[in-house]
Amino acid sequence: MADKVVVAGIGMTRFGKFLDRGVRSLSEESVKQALGDAGLESKDVQTAYFANAVSGLITGQEMIRGQVALRNTGLLGIPIFNVENACASAASAFHLAWLAIASGQYDVALAVGSEKLYHEDKTRSFKAIGTAVDLERLQELKKRMEETKGASGGDEKAGQNRSFFMDIYASMTREYMKASGATAEDFADVAVKNHDQGALNPKAQYRERCTREEVLASREISEPLTLMMCSPIGDGSAAAIHCSEKFARERGVRQPIQIRASVLVSGTDRKGNEPGAVERAAERAYSVAGVGPKDVDVIEVHDAASPAELMATEDLGLCKRGEGPALLHSGQTRLGGKHVVNPSGGLLAKGHPIGATGIAQIVEICEQLRGVAGQRQVQGARIGLTENGGGFLGRDAAAMSVHVFSAG
Amino acid sequence: MADKVVVAGIGMTRFGKFLDRGVRSLSEESVKQALGDAGLESKDVQTAYFANAVSGLITGQEMIRGQVALRNTGLLGIPIFNVENACASAASAFHLAWLAIASGQYDVALAVGSEKLYHEDKTRSFKAIGTAVDLERLQELKKRMEETKGASGGDEKAGQNRSFFMDIYASMTREYMKASGATAEDFADVAVKNHDQGALNPKAQYRERCTREEVLASREISEPLTLMMCSPIGDGSAAAIHCSEKFARERGVRQPIQIRASVLVSGTDRKGNEPGAVERAAERAYSVAGVGPKDVDVIEVHDAASPAELMATEDLGLCKRGEGPALLHSGQTRLGGKHVVNPSGGLLAKGHPIGATGIAQIVEICEQLRGVAGQRQVQGARIGLTENGGGFLGRDAAAMSVHVFSAG
Repeated sequence: MADKVVVAGIGMTRFGKFLDRGVRSLSEESVKQALGDAGLESKDVQTAYFANAVSGLITGQEMIRGQVALRNTGLLGIPIFNVENACASAASAFHLAWLAIASGQYDVALAVGSEKLYHEDKTRSFKAIGTAVDLERLQELKKRMEETKGASGGDEKAGQNRSFFMDIYASMTREYMKASGATAEDFADVAVKNHDQGALNPKAQYRERCTREEVLASREISEPLTLMMCSPIGDGSAAAIHCSEKFARERGVRQPIQIRASVLVSGTDRKGNEPGAVERAAERAYSVAGVGPKDVDVIEVHDAASPAELMATEDLGLCKRGEGPALLHSGQTRLGGKHVVNPSGGLLAKGHPIGATGIAQIVEICEQLRGVAGQRQVQGARIGLTENGGGFLGRDAAAMSVHVFSAG
Repeated sequence: MADKVVVAGIGMTRFGKFLDRGVRSLSEESVKQALGDAGLESKDVQTAYFANAVSGLITGQEMIRGQVALRNTGLLGIPIFNVENACASAASAFHLAWLAIASGQYDVALAVGSEKLYHEDKTRSFKAIGTAVDLERLQELKKRMEETKGASGGDEKAGQNRSFFMDIYASMTREYMKASGATAEDFADVAVKNHDQGALNPKAQYRERCTREEVLASREISEPLTLMMCSPIGDGSAAAIHCSEKFARERGVRQPIQIRASVLVSGTDRKGNEPGAVERAAERAYSVAGVGPKDVDVIEVHDAASPAELMATEDLGLCKRGEGPALLHSGQTRLGGKHVVNPSGGLLAKGHPIGATGIAQIVEICEQLRGVAGQRQVQGARIGLTENGGGFLGRDAAAMSVHVFSAG
């Protein structure tokens, strides 16, 4: 590689339900912020990667979503790529922007992830999310979930008011409970921690704290998941500007963040105990970055449902297999701990506008490594990691990314 | 850049209307061919870029289309990116695969473009194509087309049986006719030439020759375009394997083709005589490749409608502004001429499965530069060029790519 690649600027809208705003308006806000943060102008940007997952099904706009979203930003004219990888769309776009700079073909690259998921007709949002699985194998998938199902897991009527995707998470959760002994109380405690942390994040969709009892008592979505264990439907946008270390130095970028590893993998039809996508991506990311789980101070993981955070801490090697709940209860993954997980509030509290999530995680890690995360600052954070997964394929995520960052 | 990037292998299905085949089956065929052609196996491929434009609207599968399409190819596990850029989706994926190798991060990259556009209910195909414009500005666009409209151009009922996109081509064509004096006969002659050439291509959707009279007499689509001046609805897949020159040498790749320039741009709200996307992309591509229009022996252009070929020959500098028809009639763009355009039959005769087209053009150029194009071989071809455009934005293509290749 010609030169090291850095994040020169970051931007992000608040996440939430914005009936009056579209993908374009949200994108304009995050991109403007990111450019301002980098001290660059739109004319400096030479290529752009636009991540979005479901706009086609929500707004009807397909094929050239990035060009449409960015048309008033002054960026038209440069190459614009529309990138889709379900809930890992934004991390995928980020990886491509990193490659663009690494190739030496471009000086400045923009990665932006934007989503308009909220719709007055909620079933439309849920239906859109449901296309992140292999539709040809839907029956096969449903059958497997049926086999692990609890008493109330498959109510067809309830299914109208939830994402089919949460049935998949619920099925994985039931398998995880059997293997690890984790309980619904553990999953509730993840939600409590992340809502506590989200309460400190001005950009979080939910800023209210909650109790274990409230989480457990909230409406059942798919056994054992309750509403408050699931990330909400929402809209938002996040952006990052990439350049080489040399370019950042020459242009006086104030607080560049080093991209130590950018890894993406796809899922496999893994059998038995073969490593899953998170483990494979993490192993490679640690190796490339030259760090291990012990070195990571701050982590954003893909807690689309709260049990996924516990599984992720295991897959990322922060603890041994089955010890996710114990690590949580030790307080080490909470603000003040040694490996703070989801200081932003995570997908559960910060929100999960699908196509924006991967870059929003990176925005949080960059703020943490710059030491500007305010009330939710992880003291002395030097190494940060993000884990962003998307879609479901066979027995694994369809796309999974792990990024490692370091300050300065 | 660490090393020059080459095309190591190519593959392509026949283009056509395949009611019994889906994106996955088509992709498997082109990828298998490309790997075999490169003398590589699926385990050698380290990253993949999957281009598709309309499957979400035709089949319902969104977000992880590449993972679904490639699931039986042995490729799962590697990074897979889903890339969309309307009719330029495949050239965009190709550019990203090129960057991946140029970055030095991957040894072997696959770019594959696949489309399932044909549907028993044709209006569904047409509606899908119609999303390649900025839907927020649709009324503005319709108004502008209205202003250039001829007597029969805007029949709402006829509109049910054609792509709205052809109305845009028709509008651009009427402007071109005013500026250049080109006539419907000229556009018919492009179709005649490309059908003559497509008749020599075993993979073309249409292999029947036609006459000027037949083209002019075919059903009017949108004045002045008749059915035979428009590319057909169809399905297909095309794939290319990228690696570094060094890797190709080490692995004994038999006929690597040099990628001399890979350029992508987006359209702008250009005013007056500001250069359009094709001109901007071509200027940069010639500069990077160190060649000029005079050096190019064989060219595949984006003749989604036949007038576009004449405009492209002008924009690519093969002739002066307004001389596209004269260049055509000189015979120089026909097999046997100095700058053969669309020896494959072009989009008009070879077919235009949207997400596959950009790589299919590159497959043709690689075959020409290897000297294996059979009856349609351009003798002594050394330099080849492809022009692949997609979508419509304001007054320009939304995405436009120009690639330059050379033999050996």
